Amino acid sequence: MIKWRMRWYLVIHGPNLNLLGSREPEVYGSLSLEQLDARLAQEAAVLGAGLRSLQSNHEGEIIDGVQEAQAWASGILINPGGYSHTSVAIRDALAASQLTCIEVHLSNIHNREDFRQRSLTAAVCRGVVAGFGLHSYLAGLRLLHELSAGAD
Amino acid sequence: MIKWRMRWYLVIHGPNLNLLGSREPEVYGSLSLEQLDARLAQEAAVLGAGLRSLQSNHEGEIIDGVQEAQAWASGILINPGGYSHTSVAIRDALAASQLTCIEVHLSNIHNREDFRQRSLTAAVCRGVVAGFGLHSYLAGLRLLHELSAGAD
Amino acid sequence: MIKWRMRWYLVIHGPNLNLLGSREPEVYGSLSLEQLDARLAQEAAVLGAGLRSLQSNHEGEIIDGVQEAQAWASGILINPGGYSHTSVAIRDALAASQLTCIEVHLSNIHNREDFRQRSLTAAVCRGVVAGFGLHSYLAGLRLLHELSAGAD
Amino acid sequence: MIKWRMRWYLVIHGPNLNLLGSREPEVYGSLSLEQLDARLAQEAAVLGAGLRSLQSNHEGEIIDGVQEAQAWASGILINPGGYSHTSVAIRDALAASQLTCIEVHLSNIHNREDFRQRSLTAAVCRGVVAGFGLHSYLAGLRLLHELSAGAD
Amino acid sequence: MIKWRMRWYLVIHGPNLNLLGSREPEVYGSLSLEQLDARLAQEAAVLGAGLRSLQSNHEGEIIDGVQEAQAWASGILINPGGYSHTSVAIRDALAASQLTCIEVHLSNIHNREDFRQRSLTAAVCRGVVAGFGLHSYLAGLRLLHELSAGAD
Amino acid sequence: MIKWRMRWYLVIHGPNLNLLGSREPEVYGSLSLEQLDARLAQEAAVLGAGLRSLQSNHEGEIIDGVQEAQAWASGILINPGGYSHTSVAIRDALAASQLTCIEVHLSNIHNREDFRQRSLTAAVCRGVVAGFGLHSYLAGLRLLHELSAGAD
Amino acid sequence: MIKWRMRWYLVIHGPNLNLLGSREPEVYGSLSLEQLDARLAQEAAVLGAGLRSLQSNHEGEIIDGVQEAQAWASGILINPGGYSHTSVAIRDALAASQLTCIEVHLSNIHNREDFRQRSLTAAVCRGVVAGFGLHSYLAGLRLLHELSAGAD
Amino acid sequence: MIKWRMRWYLVIHGPNLNLLGSREPEVYGSLSLEQLDARLAQEAAVLGAGLRSLQSNHEGEIIDGVQEAQAWASGILINPGGYSHTSVAIRDALAASQLTCIEVHLSNIHNREDFRQRSLTAAVCRGVVAGFGLHSYLAGLRLLHELSAGAD
Amino acid sequence: MIKWRMRWYLVIHGPNLNLLGSREPEVYGSLSLEQLDARLAQEAAVLGAGLRSLQSNHEGEIIDGVQEAQAWASGILINPGGYSHTSVAIRDALAASQLTCIEVHLSNIHNREDFRQRSLTAAVCRGVVAGFGLHSYLAGLRLLHELSAGAD
Amino acid sequence: MIKWRMRWYLVIHGPNLNLLGSREPEVYGSLSLEQLDARLAQEAAVLGAGLRSLQSNHEGEIIDGVQEAQAWASGILINPGGYSHTSVAIRDALAASQLTCIEVHLSNIHNREDFRQRSLTAAVCRGVVAGFGLHSYLAGLRLLHELSAGAD
Amino acid sequence: MIKWRMRWYLVIHGPNLNLLGSREPEVYGSLSLEQLDARLAQEAAVLGAGLRSLQSNHEGEIIDGVQEAQAWASGILINPGGYSHTSVAIRDALAASQLTCIEVHLSNIHNREDFRQRSLTAAVCRGVVAGFGLHSYLAGLRLLHELSAGAD
Amino acid sequence: MIKWRMRWYLVIHGPNLNLLGSREPEVYGSLSLEQLDARLAQEAAVLGAGLRSLQSNHEGEIIDGVQEAQAWASGILINPGGYSHTSVAIRDALAASQLTCIEVHLSNIHNREDFRQRSLTAAVCRGVVAGFGLHSYLAGLRLLHELSAGAD
Repeated sequence: MIKWRMRWYLVIHGPNLNLLGSREPEVYGSLSLEQLDARLAQEAAVLGAGLRSLQSNHEGEIIDGVQEAQAWASGILINPGGYSHTSVAIRDALAASQLTCIEVHLSNIHNREDFRQRSLTAAVCRGVVAGFGLHSYLAGLRLLHELSAGAD
Repeated sequence: MIKWRMRWYLVIHGPNLNLLGSREPEVYGSLSLEQLDARLAQEAAVLGAGLRSLQSNHEGEIIDGVQEAQAWASGILINPGGYSHTSVAIRDALAASQLTCIEVHLSNIHNREDFRQRSLTAAVCRGVVAGFGLHSYLAGLRLLHELSAGAD
Repeated sequence: MIKWRMRWYLVIHGPNLNLLGSREPEVYGSLSLEQLDARLAQEAAVLGAGLRSLQSNHEGEIIDGVQEAQAWASGILINPGGYSHTSVAIRDALAASQLTCIEVHLSNIHNREDFRQRSLTAAVCRGVVAGFGLHSYLAGLRLLHELSAGAD
Repeated sequence: MIKWRMRWYLVIHGPNLNLLGSREPEVYGSLSLEQLDARLAQEAAVLGAGLRSLQSNHEGEIIDGVQEAQAWASGILINPGGYSHTSVAIRDALAASQLTCIEVHLSNIHNREDFRQRSLTAAVCRGVVAGFGLHSYLAGLRLLHELSAGAD
Repeated sequence: MIKWRMRWYLVIHGPNLNLLGSREPEVYGSLSLEQLDARLAQEAAVLGAGLRSLQSNHEGEIIDGVQEAQAWASGILINPGGYSHTSVAIRDALAASQLTCIEVHLSNIHNREDFRQRSLTAAVCRGVVAGFGLHSYLAGLRLLHELSAGAD
Repeated sequence: MIKWRMRWYLVIHGPNLNLLGSREPEVYGSLSLEQLDARLAQEAAVLGAGLRSLQSNHEGEIIDGVQEAQAWASGILINPGGYSHTSVAIRDALAASQLTCIEVHLSNIHNREDFRQRSLTAAVCRGVVAGFGLHSYLAGLRLLHELSAGAD
Repeated sequence: MIKWRMRWYLVIHGPNLNLLGSREPEVYGSLSLEQLDARLAQEAAVLGAGLRSLQSNHEGEIIDGVQEAQAWASGILINPGGYSHTSVAIRDALAASQLTCIEVHLSNIHNREDFRQRSLTAAVCRGVVAGFGLHSYLAGLRLLHELSAGAD
Repeated sequence: MIKWRMRWYLVIHGPNLNLLGSREPEVYGSLSLEQLDARLAQEAAVLGAGLRSLQSNHEGEIIDGVQEAQAWASGILINPGGYSHTSVAIRDALAASQLTCIEVHLSNIHNREDFRQRSLTAAVCRGVVAGFGLHSYLAGLRLLHELSAGAD
Repeated sequence: MIKWRMRWYLVIHGPNLNLLGSREPEVYGSLSLEQLDARLAQEAAVLGAGLRSLQSNHEGEIIDGVQEAQAWASGILINPGGYSHTSVAIRDALAASQLTCIEVHLSNIHNREDFRQRSLTAAVCRGVVAGFGLHSYLAGLRLLHELSAGAD
Repeated sequence: MIKWRMRWYLVIHGPNLNLLGSREPEVYGSLSLEQLDARLAQEAAVLGAGLRSLQSNHEGEIIDGVQEAQAWASGILINPGGYSHTSVAIRDALAASQLTCIEVHLSNIHNREDFRQRSLTAAVCRGVVAGFGLHSYLAGLRLLHELSAGAD
Repeated sequence: MIKWRMRWYLVIHGPNLNLLGSREPEVYGSLSLEQLDARLAQEAAVLGAGLRSLQSNHEGEIIDGVQEAQAWASGILINPGGYSHTSVAIRDALAASQLTCIEVHLSNIHNREDFRQRSLTAAVCRGVVAGFGLHSYLAGLRLLHELSAGAD
Repeated sequence: MIKWRMRWYLVIHGPNLNLLGSREPEVYGSLSLEQLDARLAQEAAVLGAGLRSLQSNHEGEIIDGVQEAQAWASGILINPGGYSHTSVAIRDALAASQLTCIEVHLSNIHNREDFRQRSLTAAVCRGVVAGFGLHSYLAGLRLLHELSAGAD
């Protein structure tokens, strides 16, 4: 008899992403975070996977979330927001986890301020999808599902 | 009939400012944070405005405070302390808010260590007052009141 | 009567990508370029789009290809390989084109040599997908199709 | 019998500030230098102080002015304009003077070109007020009056 | 009659140190944080001192801990982890405290990534012990006890 | 009997200049490359000189062109486009030629991106004309004719 | 009836250019400044324009000259000499003027010392002509006349 | 019966090396490229090896040559000329090849311009011989023969 | 019958450490080098180990000492003094030795001049103890004894 | 009959040196500029030479003075003060003059702020004497007399 | 009658090269320094030249050796080891000598740590051979013999 | 009765200065070191002082010499040669000595290679005399005598 185990992923939304939809909509789009999470959950359902979503403005809570995910998740989809460029601690948490991690960004960090061009966290992720708004998340989720398939 | 609306401001005291009065008094003065807040409230009263004060050592709580202020405040007076020089996330929160923001510093950051000379957060504020101890706050508050007048 | 027009995309494979499958397979995978192109064409067919593929080790030929694509393509999917980091001229060609451009990389450029962390070309693309091998291309193609839909 | 001595301040307007009101009014405001000086004199009168104003496009004349002020002034309010970023000589003059010096800027130098982010002169001043147009001057003047009070 | 007062120390474990034993054991050893704390308490008992231990992934909680230690501790033994390299705020908290502080690292930060070679926090500590795993902590504790002896 | 020898010049248009007139006309003007070449030929005729024009997106073809010009040309008028900033090889070719070389740019490279401010090729040319659109070429051609006169 | 208005230009010769002809003639040529001005006046006459010439070793006088030119000139031809590389104040004056400005240099600044390769002033000019001795000025004057034609 | 197989090497002459003998002979010597190739062939004959020579000014052709050499050559002797310092793509081609590669330079790159001191390509070669004119090639060839002996 | 072998260590005191006790005692303490060595020998005796001490101002003698220690020592305790920051050669000697090496510093190098913050030698040691005067040595010796225990 | 010609030198005191004696006397000594000039004149008399002294806070006046000195002086003794570090224009004036120039500084510029460690002007002088207060000038004058002797 | 004079060369082995054969043999090979010297002497005999060999870990002894070689040697073959990257003094000694100098390295310095990529000494040598182990020395010796032939 | 004590000075000649007179005489003059020392001794005699001279190519011997001079010398005149730019250890020795130290250079280090522009040792000396050949030494000696007079 086949024992099926659904894969679960953690989606982390970093600082200020709770403002999605109201913060500079011409840059970040008009979708709210709730709508984004709903859209991601719908996509996960299609893939046969489950999602848990964490938004926090607190570097420490993001680290906590990454650490706890080791107990239940098969992978992490993370938009570290401003912490991408400054947090050695989140980088260390991602590196310490045994999970497949994918970094996503709503905007294309390659054509913004200099200090946004370096991502400390991306270096310890499997890869990066940046510049496609909601579609960065959706593509990232599908990639995460494909890549973490081998880990079961 | 004229409808009068009092303007409210958020005053943010960044990390270690709760130590005011006891931390290196020769640099930062002997006034405690409570005394500073009382003095600011007194000044606000003269201006006909109200103040709410937030002190936190947590980067995330400061971001939370900035975000919530959009609901009730006309402007933000912020001394980001050590986070001025390292926090892309607070910078993003200030930039995302629709409020007039003014950065203040007790000491003159231009004659301190190299890493204190760059302020990531100042670039998204309206302006900066630095080097005058308590008077940086008082001047900043008056400037905030004058500049946010047009926003009513 | 509805006139349907199929969208066509140009896929550009930069220098050394003709070696795909034989060059450091542990880094770049064992798929050959022909197999990659076949897989992409299959995906395009599913999307109802057509692909033309160009591989060149010559910076000038890549520029020529980008320029000519303006006549027939709706978008460009480009892996500039080593030219990502050195070619102002390809950057200018991409910027001059009116097409949606997406940059893809097989490996995660954020954890390689310093000189690979800067992408001159990514800054003029809509976004970037990096680190997922074949899947970088597939995700990039789907994103290109979604984003260029509005341009019809 | 109480001997009252009025305090006098020197206000220095650096290069191109004589163009105030006509130079990029969207950046620097529409007030002319004469109007600014009048407004400052009015504020000084309220404080019970006197002002002398010096505008010069010449680095040397600004140094001369700083040196001569030692004979009659209690403090200096200086907007060094472009010389803020390049003049070791004005910095030395300010440091050599025994007067309280405050640097003001009409615009927020923290969000302009890189070469405007370093102020050689601010490091030897008591503090800085930047980004508030006319209000930078007014706030600076009030701070100067408060800070130089103890020097009598 | 001799009045004996036991000295108490605060041991701070920065972000991700709660993973000790499971995170890259070939780098950080197989000892868990609980075992490390037990070993340190045992050593403290030998020295006739008491320890309180704080692990947090939150920059702000570490600052809070440092500030509160002024009320009860004679010194601080801190492994700031990833915050060593990025936190001006923890640096300021350590500098503001009147306590002897010693920084320890499990690994030798001098032979790791470039961004780990600068320690913002070490500059305000009395000294540093790095590279000896558990022994960094034990040696640091003994040094702290010896150095804070004169402060009684 | 006087033997008259007409002077011939090579005009090199670097990468993407074949797009002239259609590429960002607000930056580069609406003149096509053919029109530009015609206008230059007309000017050359007035000067009593002949022109040959080479446009290439290929670094190597530009080097080939420079090398071959030694056989027939009295000077080179070159707009290396994006290769100005990256090509040591074109620089070496220009330096190796015995011809007077003048570099021209349509736009003012001094107020564009940082990486456009350094011109590797300009250092081995006689001089530079930049920022005047078509007129950069015309002025460059006249200067070339005047300067190469002495070489006959 | 056609109303003809002659256009006037200001020619600014920066520091040490009064030594022209005697200073390193192998670099700067043997023409004196008077001869250069005469040659320029002759060229202006051909163009139907008038010239006024200002040579000064004083940064402030150059700024004064730029400011005053707004009242009578249609454009500025400036060789800022050593001030090209150090004067934010002249840059600001040029930017503040509503006039077309062209920067010229006798020598090719791209093959001299590093500190001469950056021109602070060129960035706010329309364009630059450098490396052609007297001919830099003549070409610059003709370009200025052509470009300022549209401003009448 | 012993089966003898002659080893073949590819000699790559980068951009401008076709000018050998005429380009700055005081730096590069008076030997032409044909003479250099003849001399190398003669040396190869002595070693019992065969040579094929490729000169190109085109980065892409050099990459093509490197790739094709995998089919027939035992090693590559390359003087990448100006591409040494700028070509990530040639570096990648050399690294991807399974052949022993040796980089040679006619002149001593350590005492030339700063931008010639970094060799992107040398880092993926077995070693470098620089500064000995023709003798750099001859020594490089002999070293290549010795080192590739073990690969048979 | 148990064969006991005492472990021997080499203690290296770099340049100017022979001045210990007289050189800036407020920084380095009043203990002489002889007293320091005596104190270390006493500590070693407690540990059941032997010490040999080498002080030299000569980089070469330190290298000689490191090399010779391979014949008789189980580990090296080194304070390279000023050579920490400049000596690739001592670094290479330490790396070449098969011995456990620990670097110690009397003062905290993290809060001194910039050029003292980089330690070339620390990167090849097991770890570092810095900032505790005599206690840096004592702690270093104990750590060395513990760490080299496994090597017997 | 021997024709004796007295040599004359120009002594230039840069910005703020008119404050000598009152400006930070613990750094610059208590001698006034008049006393310094008198002391130098006395020394010149001993040498059989004449001095003319120029103090100016104006960069342009210093350039004027250097230029005019060519008509009457045999050498220049210059303390450019703050202009040492910022003035390309004074550097050019000194280089253009045919005179022996010696730079002197009252204080030792090698142990002051970073921006004082580079002297743009020293590079075109014969040599430098720095750190000896009045004695820097006296030694510089004697050196100038000795070195310019051969030029008669 | 032909007077034959044998040429003599000095071979300098810098710090830690006495460890050859035992130090990281996978990097540096298993040949001892004695064997290397014997092999070089054998090669010299074939060339009809004589060798003297100097190994020292002392920078000063290497300088002494270079200086003394002027009396008897026709050239120097030097592997400065770690001193390549740090010794201005050896560089000056080599530059001061009238001898042909060739620098050799066992390993390819272009693919090691950053601080090994700059060779202060190579810039004053005729050329460099690096990356070929023993063969670097042998090739260097043959090149030295060929190049110094003209000096007899 | 007056007790007269002659002052003694140590003159240190760094690496390669033993070659004086033969090493690049056009740069360093034709005087030998012996002649220089004789000339200095003669000057010292005039001043009523004694000299001891030390030349060494060994960094360690220079440190030894500086340390020993504390027992008998009133000051040190040092030309550290190439060690000026690289030796933290000599800097520390000079700083540790209680003697007045003056640094001299034969040539003007401000117009030589970049790496010669920073002097680590000058920062701990009283001052510097550079660029005057023998006269740098003579002037330095006289300055040393004047400055150390107060120390008796």
